[in-house]
Amino acid sequence: MLPGIMMHRPLRVSDILDFAAEIHPTGEVVSVMLDGSVHRISYQALHRRVARLAHALREMGVGPGDRVATLAWNTHRHFELYYAISGLGAVCHTINPRLSAEQFTYIVNHAGDRALFFDVTFAAQLAALRGSFPDEIEYVALCESGAVPEEMPDARAYDDLLEGQPDSITLPDLDENDACALCYTSGTTGNPKGVLYSNRSMVLHALMMANAEQNIFREGRRILPVVPLFHANAWGLPYTAPLAGASLVMPGMTLDGPSIFRLADREEVYSAFGVPTVWMSLLDEMDRQGRKPKGLGEVVTGGSAAPRRLVERFMVDYGVEVIHGWGMTETSPIGTLSCLPVHLRGRPVEERIDRTLLQGRRAFGFEMKIVDEDGNDLPWDGVSVGEYLVRGNGVVRGYYNNEAATKAAITPDGWFRTGDMASITPEGEMKIADRSKDLIKSGGEWISSIDVENMAMSHPAVANCAVIAVPHPKWVERPLLVVQRTPGTEAGAADLRAHVAANLAKWQVPDDVVFVDELPMTATGKVSKRTLRERYKDHPMDGAPG
Amino acid sequence: MLPGIMMHRPLRVSDILDFAAEIHPTGEVVSVMLDGSVHRISYQALHRRVARLAHALREMGVGPGDRVATLAWNTHRHFELYYAISGLGAVCHTINPRLSAEQFTYIVNHAGDRALFFDVTFAAQLAALRGSFPDEIEYVALCESGAVPEEMPDARAYDDLLEGQPDSITLPDLDENDACALCYTSGTTGNPKGVLYSNRSMVLHALMMANAEQNIFREGRRILPVVPLFHANAWGLPYTAPLAGASLVMPGMTLDGPSIFRLADREEVYSAFGVPTVWMSLLDEMDRQGRKPKGLGEVVTGGSAAPRRLVERFMVDYGVEVIHGWGMTETSPIGTLSCLPVHLRGRPVEERIDRTLLQGRRAFGFEMKIVDEDGNDLPWDGVSVGEYLVRGNGVVRGYYNNEAATKAAITPDGWFRTGDMASITPEGEMKIADRSKDLIKSGGEWISSIDVENMAMSHPAVANCAVIAVPHPKWVERPLLVVQRTPGTEAGAADLRAHVAANLAKWQVPDDVVFVDELPMTATGKVSKRTLRERYKDHPMDGAPG
Repeated sequence: MLPGIMMHRPLRVSDILDFAAEIHPTGEVVSVMLDGSVHRISYQALHRRVARLAHALREMGVGPGDRVATLAWNTHRHFELYYAISGLGAVCHTINPRLSAEQFTYIVNHAGDRALFFDVTFAAQLAALRGSFPDEIEYVALCESGAVPEEMPDARAYDDLLEGQPDSITLPDLDENDACALCYTSGTTGNPKGVLYSNRSMVLHALMMANAEQNIFREGRRILPVVPLFHANAWGLPYTAPLAGASLVMPGMTLDGPSIFRLADREEVYSAFGVPTVWMSLLDEMDRQGRKPKGLGEVVTGGSAAPRRLVERFMVDYGVEVIHGWGMTETSPIGTLSCLPVHLRGRPVEERIDRTLLQGRRAFGFEMKIVDEDGNDLPWDGVSVGEYLVRGNGVVRGYYNNEAATKAAITPDGWFRTGDMASITPEGEMKIADRSKDLIKSGGEWISSIDVENMAMSHPAVANCAVIAVPHPKWVERPLLVVQRTPGTEAGAADLRAHVAANLAKWQVPDDVVFVDELPMTATGKVSKRTLRERYKDHPMDGAPG
Repeated sequence: MLPGIMMHRPLRVSDILDFAAEIHPTGEVVSVMLDGSVHRISYQALHRRVARLAHALREMGVGPGDRVATLAWNTHRHFELYYAISGLGAVCHTINPRLSAEQFTYIVNHAGDRALFFDVTFAAQLAALRGSFPDEIEYVALCESGAVPEEMPDARAYDDLLEGQPDSITLPDLDENDACALCYTSGTTGNPKGVLYSNRSMVLHALMMANAEQNIFREGRRILPVVPLFHANAWGLPYTAPLAGASLVMPGMTLDGPSIFRLADREEVYSAFGVPTVWMSLLDEMDRQGRKPKGLGEVVTGGSAAPRRLVERFMVDYGVEVIHGWGMTETSPIGTLSCLPVHLRGRPVEERIDRTLLQGRRAFGFEMKIVDEDGNDLPWDGVSVGEYLVRGNGVVRGYYNNEAATKAAITPDGWFRTGDMASITPEGEMKIADRSKDLIKSGGEWISSIDVENMAMSHPAVANCAVIAVPHPKWVERPLLVVQRTPGTEAGAADLRAHVAANLAKWQVPDDVVFVDELPMTATGKVSKRTLRERYKDHPMDGAPG
């Protein structure tokens, strides 16, 4: 081997904001604050505030490798924390406020956070939990001077912290492999597992994401992350947007359809990122107003499979493109995106919808394969379904202080087990069949809960639903459909089973349908199938499909 | 410090073509072959040919670290060599055929090439030189079976080499810092110096370039590299285009205005990359036909400063955007690009032209500064001129087997000395004042040869020109203008001096003007000021400016 003779400059998260401040001076972060007011700041001015915050963190004793937690909505302050903490070589640990008290306590202790920055709406929640946190944690409320909530009387005010600090800073020399951020997966079983991102992984992920979605990550574009900054780095947007010169429009804490519509409309947002439930609510508001928010061109949906109806409503009714993505906290998170290949962009809308329902093509630098139970590669034929394994600079090679979870997640030859089952078309478009644990094993055949759900969701009476496995003496497992009805509709079990039967194989049709007022949700906004499986494990199933 | 827990996957050049073949199957390389025929091939099919070539190279004994030379025009075969050689961990050494016999011999021996692939047009040149090359070099002619030129009778035919080879290959595991390519700078003094690129530097350069020119590097775009593949990696286009899903239209050996027009027009090229002399010739053809090539949207110009007239003709007469870039073989090569910030894109054309005449803003990952003679930072005020120093993953940290040159080029704190003098505006737009060695020191003032040349070039009688320093007993140096007249014009020395005097300070006006039939050029297509300085070192100068 002959080594090249080129400079080695560490890839660092802080370089992204340095770059945006210098090269994209009119790029900005617009935030809906917790009181509903709108705050605007340019990347240039943000760069100065980040320096001030970094000085303050240093005064608090935060140094390289220290974990600093955030419990906050999407606003410019949370964005500032991302960059100031990482810039110092410390680790920005974003906490999902929807975690259970038990999980919350676990991760603060497991991470060993030395400070915690919180939005004032979380003061009561925090006050109730802090007794089980390490004593030495310092608390900072994300508020103006004098506005610290009474539940957390010893907390300092964020604005006080920044007061009087110099607005430039010399950051430490970091290695590109040094950690910059930490995010726990809320996992449906066991304790949450920590994903410890490096500066290198985050910068490469941002560069690769910009290359994968060339139409969104452009100078001057306005991007709305409905996905929270505490959820897998808001899909990397706080890094990719400033890198590309795009602006961020931060929605704060109000994420209902009418609020998102108003914000996107007023700020002429080109692209918004979030989960399907958010889009359903936005679409209802669009229907109510009979128009799309001004300038909205593309919606990126992820977190769970997008129902066909969602894609149809955006693309057919409003001419808004839908990009369907796949990712996990463990993959930074973007792995694949359904951006249509250029030669298919002029195809009939039905074909474009079909392809958008796949999770799409891999980003450069992200590798994927599907394997059978013995680990043998399966063909990319659009039919073969196997365990979905991935690899890349944005993918974990283990969990923070968790050897058992690491061992279970990484194959001996270095691939990450996603826990998903997938197929891949000859064109390289990936389709998630199901989470492996949600697949229903019926008489030697696998039933994809997602396929059955998508079919059920196309019935107007179904507002939301889940298909789960119920143990069965003869067939091992059989599917049960759990439905949250669209208000004002009255379809019964027989109607819905007939609807599904019209489009799927007989053995795939759920044995029964139960109706619920509300589906149980996880902290990351997905239906908790674990809860449902527990609840219906003794549900009588006739085992006579069709 | 706390290391992140993410996978480390080497950034490798071969990954780019793997990606393009899989994700951009309709992307293609179109080549004008040496016989004028047009060859088309998709990235998918190219990927298979590259595998076959890599097998053949292995059979020839080429392994990691070996240098393999190319002497070739821009065609798909040259592109295949780039990827096959680098994929094996070997080093693709592109040779500029315009080098002098002495320089050519020097670099083949200095590089220690073990094979040399050549286009048949270079057979006679090679036959005359090979006696001074190492005996063990294997020669391959880029031609079909049976078409090996008689001047190189022992050469093998490229197509024979590929015949029967398998069209997939398992490449060796490379470290991302392993070398992938070698290019010598033709340097105006001393022997050429070798720049040894790494897989990491090349991949990061491609990602950064795609992010810097978001409008060109997009899936489906068609890009014409007039800049040769033997010249600083054709400005990175063989990497950046497939990464982004853009197609390449390779012009082969005919680079005159009418040929480039025809090709760009027929292939609906969106963007073309080359040096100012190429564009002048293309513009003449556009004037002749009274239109631009169909689909041409942007022209990227570099290598030497773009004259105002060139930018005006494209932008005003034809509505074609001009992107002015700066780079060097030592910087991969792209460092800055004049892409207008989004908030200035609607400005009046005169202002846009003014800004396009600057060399532009830095790409992400590329750092720059200007310093005074003591190495102190100078302000970015658009006025202060200093030595232009750069840093980044795409920048050399030394030359191949050349300690003296390395020492001279790198500052003690690790910046690369470009040899240029530059200013930088508060908006981060860089402007080259001159090569340091071309600056004219007149009575304690510096005169930028580029500024005076640009002014002279705006006179219709000046087809091309150079301003050089001539020693002067009183003023140390004084400028002399050397002009190649536009055919059919008759302006004299007094006319041209008056034209320059009308727009520049008195002391900047050349003392005299000499007219020549043709300006001497370097191997990279720039006016050789070294030759002119030697030729006119005793030219009588009156030292009475204005």
